[in-house]
Amino acid sequence: MERSICALDWNEGQLRFLDQTRLPHEVVYMQVSQYRDVVTAIHNMQIRGAPVIGVAAAYGMALAARETLPSDCLSILRSVEESGAQLRAARPTAVNLSWAIDRLLLVARNYYQMAGEDAQVFAKEILTEAQRIHEEDLEATTRIGILGTQLLPPKSLVVTHCNTGALATTGKGTALGIIQAGWDRGLVDKVFVTESRPLFQGARLTSWELLQLGIPMKLIVDSALGYLLRTESINCIIVGADRIAANGDIANKIGTYSLAILAREHGVPFYVAAPISTIDMETSSGDAIVVEERNPAEVLRVGATMIAPDETPVWNPAFDITPSHYVTALITEAGILKAPSREGLAEITRTRVRSNYNQTMEPS
Amino acid sequence: MERSICALDWNEGQLRFLDQTRLPHEVVYMQVSQYRDVVTAIHNMQIRGAPVIGVAAAYGMALAARETLPSDCLSILRSVEESGAQLRAARPTAVNLSWAIDRLLLVARNYYQMAGEDAQVFAKEILTEAQRIHEEDLEATTRIGILGTQLLPPKSLVVTHCNTGALATTGKGTALGIIQAGWDRGLVDKVFVTESRPLFQGARLTSWELLQLGIPMKLIVDSALGYLLRTESINCIIVGADRIAANGDIANKIGTYSLAILAREHGVPFYVAAPISTIDMETSSGDAIVVEERNPAEVLRVGATMIAPDETPVWNPAFDITPSHYVTALITEAGILKAPSREGLAEITRTRVRSNYNQTMEPS
Repeated sequence: MERSICALDWNEGQLRFLDQTRLPHEVVYMQVSQYRDVVTAIHNMQIRGAPVIGVAAAYGMALAARETLPSDCLSILRSVEESGAQLRAARPTAVNLSWAIDRLLLVARNYYQMAGEDAQVFAKEILTEAQRIHEEDLEATTRIGILGTQLLPPKSLVVTHCNTGALATTGKGTALGIIQAGWDRGLVDKVFVTESRPLFQGARLTSWELLQLGIPMKLIVDSALGYLLRTESINCIIVGADRIAANGDIANKIGTYSLAILAREHGVPFYVAAPISTIDMETSSGDAIVVEERNPAEVLRVGATMIAPDETPVWNPAFDITPSHYVTALITEAGILKAPSREGLAEITRTRVRSNYNQTMEPS
Repeated sequence: MERSICALDWNEGQLRFLDQTRLPHEVVYMQVSQYRDVVTAIHNMQIRGAPVIGVAAAYGMALAARETLPSDCLSILRSVEESGAQLRAARPTAVNLSWAIDRLLLVARNYYQMAGEDAQVFAKEILTEAQRIHEEDLEATTRIGILGTQLLPPKSLVVTHCNTGALATTGKGTALGIIQAGWDRGLVDKVFVTESRPLFQGARLTSWELLQLGIPMKLIVDSALGYLLRTESINCIIVGADRIAANGDIANKIGTYSLAILAREHGVPFYVAAPISTIDMETSSGDAIVVEERNPAEVLRVGATMIAPDETPVWNPAFDITPSHYVTALITEAGILKAPSREGLAEITRTRVRSNYNQTMEPS
């Protein structure tokens, strides 16, 4: 695969990943061999971006299996389960995390019940499934990028929020993958990037990616979006998603809901790009999604600078919920779903469940 | 006057002001005797807040007159005019600045033409007019605070943006003055404060004021406003204004327009509190207002921390324009104007023009 930016990779029995908290100032790769380091990296957002978190958790469980060696299959199963529980708790909102963990747990339990005698083979099975999730994510996001370009008119001015690029996925990205594919096809003139407080993923990560790719861009503070839509002829807003409920409600980076309302007010299409693994059919609507509240210090401190008095009370939800009726279209690897509905999502995920079933159940 | 926070004051022939760029970490008063220092302080936002800027500019011109002494009246007039031109250019959007400068120029030219022989008296006249503007601002904002409480139901949850308190005016504030008066009357339960990127006036200044006053508050990132309105029963949003066009369009801190749209979408009243000196009847609508674009470094750097790659292009408008039809009511010292219209503004400013005329033309 031809990529200059690599969020994570499996490297000689270890998980290698780019420490995203140190970007854009330092490009530092970490390499870890213990699953607890993966839990910490996800919790601290050194590894972030819903799709990448899922892949990282899968590799984390593969590490847990390997750490247990030499051992018996029951010990491996217990270690895989324990690591799965810890990884799941690291970020409660992103569903790709739970989705990947559930897939590995299914494979592990199946193997243990049906064939579980060789611990080496068992650990290898877990790793193989993690690598499969990795490959699938790469394929899915590549396809999302290509499909999404259908929605871009020539000379598009596009707005995006947070980071959904090569740092957030194992491919070229979801929303940013579409922008990059659109740029490659000569459809994109300029990208406006919201800085995405409190952790500045738009400023730190998306700016960095776009500058590396040579795509013209401008950074704005989050609150300037309304005025931007009023003064520039923006063609669309494209964002990613951390979880999509069965009715099409979207959990995504705080600020997404405001963007969706502002888009509608200005008649600008609002697109959500996400792999099907982001769709959570067991969550009926956005109201049922647990929104992670993070540490006030994320808001109060930027680098060494306190931006408010130390004792200032803060409300710091990491995500918000955008009702599906604000979403013009959902772009997945299985196709573009206009005005996403409960029925449309059920249809698109049925395809995926069948394909997962085939992939996880066939002998490897 | 009973106040713990004082943005500026005239002190023994000098202008004393709180350096707002150093808040909340350091409470540092500066004292200057040269008008050029006032120009710099306004430009660098050590002095900020539309009403305070107007008062500071008036004192700046009084300093210019004093600096010229001993001298003749023509030299004083020239110095006052030169300082006025420089002060006007320091911040292009806030109209109180131009309004105060125009008042002092009128007084200076009148004095020079009619009675101008004694340079000492001339300089004293200029100072007297500056002090009159100061007193008027104090009265106006006090009255705005009291009037505005009519709009607050008991147990109000109020949102405010940027800083409009004792730091932005010479009284207790415009929007924040209403909140404080409401708190004093037992009408306010809690205030949600947007941090107000890029310069964090909400986080740095409004949090600091509210904590000093003991008013319960929570700080949010700007982009969390939509989700806040969806999850909490907010009673109203109150903001200030830097300039109000003749048709009621509002120029205010970047993000205000987004707030207004989000307020309407959630059925929450959107109030603008400003003294009549903020109304610019010579600007027909918001489209004619020059919006100051400030240095990209304000967005890219927080303290010593670069939040994006150094070379990131930035769009950094300091203000945005909110069309008058989003404004539920305008709160001025002369009364509350519901659904502000061209006719309503003309009526309210006519009162003011008469009163100004009386004040500036009567012998002192």
